[in-house]
Amino acid sequence: MNSKASQQLQVPPGQKVRLADYSTDTFEGSAALDKEQVKQATEQLQQRLSELQEKLYAEGKQSLLIILQARDGGGKDSTVSRVMGAFNPNGVHVANFKAPTDLELQHDFLWRIHQQVPSHGMIAVFNRSHYEDVLVTRVHGLIDDARAQQNLEHIVNFEKLLSDAGTRIVKFYLHLSPEEQKARMEDRLNDPAKHWKFNPSDLKDRALWHEYTAAYEDALATSRSYAPWYIIPADRKWLRDYLISEILVQTLEEMNPQFPTAHFEAAYYLIEDIPSR
Amino acid sequence: MNSKASQQLQVPPGQKVRLADYSTDTFEGSAALDKEQVKQATEQLQQRLSELQEKLYAEGKQSLLIILQARDGGGKDSTVSRVMGAFNPNGVHVANFKAPTDLELQHDFLWRIHQQVPSHGMIAVFNRSHYEDVLVTRVHGLIDDARAQQNLEHIVNFEKLLSDAGTRIVKFYLHLSPEEQKARMEDRLNDPAKHWKFNPSDLKDRALWHEYTAAYEDALATSRSYAPWYIIPADRKWLRDYLISEILVQTLEEMNPQFPTAHFEAAYYLIEDIPSR
Repeated sequence: MNSKASQQLQVPPGQKVRLADYSTDTFEGSAALDKEQVKQATEQLQQRLSELQEKLYAEGKQSLLIILQARDGGGKDSTVSRVMGAFNPNGVHVANFKAPTDLELQHDFLWRIHQQVPSHGMIAVFNRSHYEDVLVTRVHGLIDDARAQQNLEHIVNFEKLLSDAGTRIVKFYLHLSPEEQKARMEDRLNDPAKHWKFNPSDLKDRALWHEYTAAYEDALATSRSYAPWYIIPADRKWLRDYLISEILVQTLEEMNPQFPTAHFEAAYYLIEDIPSR
Repeated sequence: MNSKASQQLQVPPGQKVRLADYSTDTFEGSAALDKEQVKQATEQLQQRLSELQEKLYAEGKQSLLIILQARDGGGKDSTVSRVMGAFNPNGVHVANFKAPTDLELQHDFLWRIHQQVPSHGMIAVFNRSHYEDVLVTRVHGLIDDARAQQNLEHIVNFEKLLSDAGTRIVKFYLHLSPEEQKARMEDRLNDPAKHWKFNPSDLKDRALWHEYTAAYEDALATSRSYAPWYIIPADRKWLRDYLISEILVQTLEEMNPQFPTAHFEAAYYLIEDIPSR
């Protein structure tokens, strides 16, 4: 496998792209990808992720914010389970943003988001995020285009604030085809153990497929060097897991966290025995 | 292995026990335990934990609060990493309680704790907890015995409140010998990659070994049927992991979460194709 996923899938900073130009199921036209080989490579990457996270945590100076956005059935939950499961739970915080509460609606849209950003040494995963305020609200007509544009500007400024304080941001759009979404929705309907994952209102969102595409294309234009968007082919879970893992490894390697040097002289300390009572 | 860890290690509700009566490294006098067999059994239990958690999350009616307390080097962090790693990160929240902030000190001691309790469907893991307010503060003379007793009563009432709202509580004391603590501290001193885990002030706590024992024995008397304490032999990590996993499985099986039945007629829905544009 080519290891430059981050370059090929990254939305060029500040540019607007067309989602139709991005594949939902291949990478580098790699039809010959071997699933088992990719899975093995993913496991190695996850081992590396675990090591890098320990250093990030020990260093305690930088933090990482991972944002996941996708249509229904796009695989956000399973990405958290299968990729973020590589991290030590001590050092990771998953924030699931659902419809805002009454209290949250009485504040600006970034208020509830800001409370969940990672502190030094920590990784936060946003399962949905502030981007919902330029997606679902826009597509359903709760805000107009001018307001969406305003929100996008606030988002760029907000992410710059976090970046200046030592937070690296990576944003993944899980790019799903309408055919694969259909298959996943039917699977949820046909398996009683998955009924709870199906929400009839998801069909309304599906019917607005092209409106969502347009809104996502505007959202993806917030890609910046310190807060890039990646468009991840998401029709095949094992390929998705590999690509996200690889981009996270590269991101953390660039952050280059280091174990702190001791602020004490190790040889000075003697651990005494405890007399029994 | 006998599968009744929960009965043998549970502190009988309302009783005061002596820690000296509990082993730090064996279970059922099982000197002949095979490490590899126990590790395999632990893996199976973790698979079961993962299944039970999915149901708890899907059901969305009950929650689980796991409290970890131990002396320095007792293995709280590694328990989180090795046992709690079995859970889907989407449904688990780890709260690390450190020395309280200025703002937290301007409130009652349960204020910051209450903010981190699990919502319906979720699991919260407290890495240290409200019990620090009857342990470290008491041992270092920041509160007197009368105040410690008062705090213990508040804790019992608080945990009853959570229980009445659908939260099951399990409390683990990781029971370490002074010899094993010494070995682990020396290991941290001798390995530069572990220096960051060593805090010279830990030696002051070690010198207060017997005072901590007495304070823990009072804390363990808060064991209740809905919020039991378990005294886990913690000198051997693989045995500790097995026992905690087994108790968690049994706890979740008693909670008996169920996938919710669909509030819709699955056959009614047809997933339409999306016409291209």
